[in-house]
This record gives sequence, C-alpha cells and structure tokens, in this order.
Amino acid sequence: MIVKSFIWLLLAIHSSFAGVHRDEHRKTELACTMDENLLQEIQGYQSVVEQIFYEIVRGRFAGQTWESIMELTDTFGPRMSGTEQLEKAIDYSVERMRRDGLENVHTEEALVPHWVRGYESAVLMEPFYKKLPMLGLGSSIGTPKGGIFANAVVVMSFEELESLSNEAVQGKIVVFVPKWVSYGVTGQYRREGAAAAAEKGAVAALIRSVTPFSIGSPHTGVQTYEAGVKQIPIAAITVEDAEMLLRKYRRGETLKLHIVMEDYNLDPFMSRNVIGELEGTVYSNMSVVVVSGHLDSWDVGVGAMDDAGGAMISWKALTYLRDMGLRPRRTIRAILWTGEEQGVWGAKHYYEDHKRQQEEEFSFFFEADSGTFNPTGFDFVGNNQAGCIFEEIVKLMAPLNITDFRTTPDAGPDISYWVTDGFPAAAFINDNERYFWFHHSEGDSMLVESSESLDKCAAIWAAAAYVVADMSIPMPRS
Amino acid sequence: MIVKSFIWLLLAIHSSFAGVHRDEHRKTELACTMDENLLQEIQGYQSVVEQIFYEIVRGRFAGQTWESIMELTDTFGPRMSGTEQLEKAIDYSVERMRRDGLENVHTEEALVPHWVRGYESAVLMEPFYKKLPMLGLGSSIGTPKGGIFANAVVVMSFEELESLSNEAVQGKIVVFVPKWVSYGVTGQYRREGAAAAAEKGAVAALIRSVTPFSIGSPHTGVQTYEAGVKQIPIAAITVEDAEMLLRKYRRGETLKLHIVMEDYNLDPFMSRNVIGELEGTVYSNMSVVVVSGHLDSWDVGVGAMDDAGGAMISWKALTYLRDMGLRPRRTIRAILWTGEEQGVWGAKHYYEDHKRQQEEEFSFFFEADSGTFNPTGFDFVGNNQAGCIFEEIVKLMAPLNITDFRTTPDAGPDISYWVTDGFPAAAFINDNERYFWFHHSEGDSMLVESSESLDKCAAIWAAAAYVVADMSIPMPRS
Repeated sequence: MIVKSFIWLLLAIHSSFAGVHRDEHRKTELACTMDENLLQEIQGYQSVVEQIFYEIVRGRFAGQTWESIMELTDTFGPRMSGTEQLEKAIDYSVERMRRDGLENVHTEEALVPHWVRGYESAVLMEPFYKKLPMLGLGSSIGTPKGGIFANAVVVMSFEELESLSNEAVQGKIVVFVPKWVSYGVTGQYRREGAAAAAEKGAVAALIRSVTPFSIGSPHTGVQTYEAGVKQIPIAAITVEDAEMLLRKYRRGETLKLHIVMEDYNLDPFMSRNVIGELEGTVYSNMSVVVVSGHLDSWDVGVGAMDDAGGAMISWKALTYLRDMGLRPRRTIRAILWTGEEQGVWGAKHYYEDHKRQQEEEFSFFFEADSGTFNPTGFDFVGNNQAGCIFEEIVKLMAPLNITDFRTTPDAGPDISYWVTDGFPAAAFINDNERYFWFHHSEGDSMLVESSESLDKCAAIWAAAAYVVADMSIPMPRS
Repeated sequence: MIVKSFIWLLLAIHSSFAGVHRDEHRKTELACTMDENLLQEIQGYQSVVEQIFYEIVRGRFAGQTWESIMELTDTFGPRMSGTEQLEKAIDYSVERMRRDGLENVHTEEALVPHWVRGYESAVLMEPFYKKLPMLGLGSSIGTPKGGIFANAVVVMSFEELESLSNEAVQGKIVVFVPKWVSYGVTGQYRREGAAAAAEKGAVAALIRSVTPFSIGSPHTGVQTYEAGVKQIPIAAITVEDAEMLLRKYRRGETLKLHIVMEDYNLDPFMSRNVIGELEGTVYSNMSVVVVSGHLDSWDVGVGAMDDAGGAMISWKALTYLRDMGLRPRRTIRAILWTGEEQGVWGAKHYYEDHKRQQEEEFSFFFEADSGTFNPTGFDFVGNNQAGCIFEEIVKLMAPLNITDFRTTPDAGPDISYWVTDGFPAAAFINDNERYFWFHHSEGDSMLVESSESLDKCAAIWAAAAYVVADMSIPMPRS
C-alpha cells in the first residue's frame, strides 16, 4: 500500500540530495572541539586503513569489484521490481554472500510495485512524421487500445500550464519541456506531470527526459498519481525531440501526436531485501553499522551504475574485511535494498520492521546510490559531535587523496527514514558529473564503470565502515 | 543502378577522411616558392576577409545561420532519401534561395535509393529478457514475417568469423563487436557485415554501433550487399548491449535472439540536387567554385549536424556575400546534394552530368560534411602549387584564429569524384571530437549546433570561397 505523503517526503529529500550531484565539491568547516584521546584513537586507525587500501586497490582484491558487478549485471540483466530477473539476482546474492563467508545471510520480505512495460511508441504525425523514442514512466497506466491521437500543448513549467484555460488543454497531450536545473527540480515534472496535466483535462502527458545531456535516449523513472485526479498515461521523450516540439509549438504549429502504451499495473509483488553481516567481536549483532545500496534497477540498461555498483561495494566491503581477518567491535550489516526505483519500498519495509526492535542498536548508516565513479570525499549527515568525529575519519583516507568532507541534509533515499529519526549517516562524493547522462536509460551499463574507481570506492567504503564499527564509542545520534 | 566498385571506392575514401575526425590537429608544412605578386595579391584580401568576418560573426548576419538550420530541420524533420520530407525540404530550399536573391536557382535530377524502415525490434530472449534498442541499416532487407529466432555467434572481427567453421555459423545471427578504431576502420563491419555473415551461412547480422561513446542509442548507416551472396537482414544495436553480448558469449552462454525488421527496398526514387549561384563578374558561370553540403539525412534525429549545418553554411555563404555586395570574378555555386547518406547518389549524378560539359570550368570544390563545430583551420587536397596558394588564403583567417592548414587525401564524399580527377578541394577542420557520438542517431539534433560556431563556419566558408573565386588566377589542378 502506498503511504503517499511519506513517499513524497522521501522523494523530496532524495531530490535535494540528487540536486547536489553536479555541485562543485565544497568543503564544510565544522567548529570542533575533539577529545584528545578520541582524536588519537581515530588517528590510530591510519595503519589499518592503509592496509585495507593496499589490499583492495593494489593487492589481492584489485579488480574484483568490477568483475563482481559485471557478473551480476551480465547474468541477470535489468532487475526491475516485480520481475523474475530481480528475484533471481536476489537468490544469487544470498548464495554468493554465503559463499563469501558473510554471516546471518538472509532475506527480509518487502512488498514492491509490480508495473509492467508493454509495447510503447510515440510518433509525431504532423506537421511531419517522426518516431519519438519514448519510455513510459513507472506506474503509468497504458493508453486505450489503438493508442491516443491528440494535439500537443507544450509548456515549460507547471506555472505555464496553470496559466492556460482548461479548454485549451482539454483532450490534449501536455508536453512538459522544463529547463534542466537539477534532478530534484527538473524531476518534478516526471514525478507530478501526469497529475498536473490531468487536472487541466489532458488525456496524456509527455516529459523531456530528466538529464542535462542526451544522445537521443529517453530516460524513465517513477511517477505518482494524485488521489482524486484522473489517471492518464505519462512517458518521457528525448531532450532532442522535446526541445524541437517546444520550438515548433512556440511558432504556432499544430502538433499531432500518436501515443501507444501497453503498460499496466499488477498487484504489489513480494520481493526481498538481501542482508549479510560481518559480526562484531564485542557487541555481536546488537550494535550495527549499515552499509547499503539497492539491487533493483529499471528495465532499460542493466543498472550497473544505478545501483549495482553501490550495492556491490557495500557487500564486498564486508567480504574483503573478512578475508583480511579484520573484524570490528560492532557488526557491519550489508543491505541490498529491493524496490528502490519505484519508491524506496524495500527500505520502507525494513524501517517498519526494525525501528522498534529493542535488541538492535543502529549506530550509523552508509548508502551508495549516486554513482561509483572516482571518489573524492564524503557527505555526512548528523549532529555536530558526530560530524567532528566523521571528519577525522575522512582524514584517514588521505593516502588515496579522498579527503573532501561536507555536510548534507541527506545521504541517500534508502536510509532517509533513519536519518529523519536522527541517526548519523554518510555517502561518498564521487566524480559523478555525468551521472544523469546515463541514469534510468539504456546507457546505464558496465561501460560506465571503471575498475580503478570501483576499487577506490570499495576501499574507502570498507575503511570507513570498519573504523565507525570499531571505535570505542558509538557515533552520537541526534 | 548501383555502380558498385565505384561506390566502394568512394566509401573507402570517405572512410579514410572520416578517420581523421579524431586526430589531433596537425599542421602540414609545404615547400613553397610563391610568386611575390601573387602573395601580395592574396594578402590584399585581408580587409575584405575581415569585413566578411565582421558582418557574419558580429554584424547583421550573426545568429542567422543557426536560425536557418533550425527552421529547415524543425520544419521538415529528418530527410531520408525517398521521403516526401526530403523533397519538401528541396522545394523549400529552392524557394528560399530565390528569396535570398541567389541566381540560377534550380534543381538537377538524381536517382536515389528508396529504402523504407518499418517496424523494428530486437530482443535478447535468453538467458534473460532484454529489449535491445536497434536500427536496421540502410538497404537492409527485412526479416520473414514473425521475425527470426536464432542463437548468436559473437565475434570481434572478420578474421574471427573467418576462423569459425560454416557449421558453427549456419542458421545463426552473427553479432559483430569490433573495437572502435575510427569510422573508416570500425565502419567496415556496418558496410560489409551482412555479406561476410551470409557467406558463412548466417541468417542475420547485428553490429555494435559505430561510435566511440554511447548513451544507449543505436546508430544507423548504409550497408551494401555483395553480388552473388545471399542477402540477410542487418541492424545496429547499442555499444552497451553489444559489449554485454560479447562478454556473455565469451563465457560460453547461449544467447537466443529474436529480431523483427519490416524494412524493404523500393525502386530508386527521383530526387534532386539543389543549386544556386552568386554569378561571377568576369567569367560568369563559365568558371565555377563549388561550395557544398548534403540536404538529405537519416530518418533518426533530424540531421542538423549531418548535414544541414554543412549544407546551410554553403548556401548562406552566397547569401551573405551577395547582401554585402561582394561578387567575385568567378561564379560561386552552392550545391545541396541529395542522396548522400545511402551512397553519395546526388554527387554521382552531378558528376556524370557535368564532367564533360565543355562550357563549364570547375576551379575548386569545397565540402562541409564533418560537423559545423568550432572551426580551427582547413584541410586541403590538390597539388603543391595549389596548396601553397591555399595555405596563404588560410592565413587570412587569422583574425578568427582559424589558421591550421593540413593536406588530406580527400575533402569529403560528395566531391570525391572531382578530387579523383585532380581538382583541388578543401574542407574545414573543426572541433568535432564528439561527431560520432551523434552521427546517424537520434542525437543528431539542433542541440549539437552552436550559433557562435556556425557563424564562424559560415564566415570562413564565405571568405575562403570569395578569395578563391576572385583571385586573378584559377587554382592550379593536377
């Protein structure tokens, strides 16, 4: 069941997070008065961090992370919620995590949406004929049989749509062609476009794909209908075609479109989060540091970037630490989330299931879901005290020259529930300037991933998780 | 009728030309002993060149070239040989050239291929399901009704295919996944893949799209069947999917594909080259300098880059010179070729029609068909004497800092017939490092074009054509 306001809050948070993807790296300066003993304790981890770096970047694990992601994505391909391919990838992860020697490997159930993409096509019929490459948006209904023939109303914003009379929009296909600002801002049209268009009487909506750069590929993503508003089909077209339609419309041309979408929604599907641990030496599984990424993807491309990379470094961080005989005081728990793409469903169910378990004490949350390109530092969210500690931990990454530290309102969509509750969390900063070029498109493939960058991501992931999990004090929470 | 060996020669030449797209700019040093009077004469054009630059880049024509290309591509969209859209674009060009005040505006007939793209789809059925974005190659036949279900044989080269037994390939779909080397080298698999695969008994062929970088878009292009070899369907898939299929095949997986192509060939279609002139003051239309680009495009994208840009700067160079009252001694003839994409058909017919016309004396050929990005210099083909003259002309472009000069075996596919006959020719060098990212794909749109770069391209095109057409001596030919 969709708890709508909650999901929207999360999407909004995710949006603001994703909005910083293209920012210049900026460093945050915290006012810190660190306890000298604690400072020395953290600095004392330098040699173990260097050992972790050596083994993952130069030693026996070098190259393994890329190989593992390649094996996962080549074997199962795209892993959309509701598909057999995702469930097979989940089974495979459980089996391989066990083979890796992780502990308490199991799955936990989570209901996820089951949206099915059928045959899809969009064509500009007049004033000239052109196929418009198109992808329906997740949860969109299909068109009536035979598709929809209608004229386009092209707008750049919700405000522009609002300024039109209902008569002008009635029976039309609204095409949203917003400027690229950020994923958060421009993505609103993907998330809310159908509802906004339907409220004005439109029969369907199209959006400019949410990306700053395009080579003729449409980008899909989730959308949500609004209660009480008629549901209409919505799909993304390419930036190229959207901009052309906008120019033509502004010149007064009549644009006749034909859209066919044989997409439909089935009942929610029971999927599973995958969990594996490196058990702590002192607190066993009472005190937990979570490292995570999501295993599901869209059905276009193979989701190597979004988010097999993030999921795999979270899993392999534990594998590599275990193989090195490094076992921290607290438990490190790897979670491979399911159902993230269509509304962070795996994470939501996990939160609901675990938030009131008294025997568990969550110490810190890591999430990797903004690319695994060359890493340059960490984003942190939490109170000042925890921030000062984490900033010192980031300084340990200096041997890989990965030392940027900044605070952020959020560290990823799947851990947002916990962050909202005041738990400290982190994500790593990486050179993901091109992230949205590939995001939710056929371009999300192994070609985006570099083995060298992945090794560095896995190395800092393992090192940061190890130190946080091993420190004498838990990370202070708000 | 296809004069095959001739076309192949041209394609080979085009390939070698296109192969230099990604080269570093290199300068050619010619050994020149210039006549001092001629040198002074050329240097005397500096002020008129600067006047041309000023008006096109900063003055009354600034921005007009982008607007003109936008109007053409937005109004007619893609312009594939055999389509009404191309013929309408031809009619429009004639009408607008006349409105621009060009002289002797007319069309000349040329038979072009009439290949029709129907419904196309490729799917990896096993070991997992994935739609493979795909584009049939120009002139490919379609599949039988219901498509072709067959296993893949994935190879990286013709040599690897050759090394397989006929039994291993019989009844299979050959997938060619060559490394990107250059358009000329890697493009062989597009041009010759069907014939090579059919010779080994394959039922269809797929190629990795011919591009160094991809965001999940397939790239089309022409292919040619070989006489006496069975014709089989051939299409391009994305780089991402091709590389994945290669990895999977190399690991011994059985790849089941389903390909549907409702493509077919009709009888050749009578199209037209568009011609307009700025008549010379002295030699009238007896002595001619040609500036050219092609008006046709593929059916994906709108062919703004390939080659509305090149066609439009060739046309507008004349318009701008005329409006400035600059009329050289020789005639400058703008030719907008038809049918280039599917085998330089417009240019071939033009050559056949004009090569023996005694009253015409061709002095020089310009062709723009490698992008209209920021220009940095000129490529020249011809004898040493002409090269030394042209090198001096290029020096006149210094006020725009466009001074690279290099010699090349060829200056473009549409003028190759003349270059082969010894006529001197030139193309401009531009920052087209990303040319093949967009080439023959949905990415070939107005978003690729920058108004500033187009102004500079138009400016040097007009200036170079003017000087070559106005000099006291004709350009020496081999």
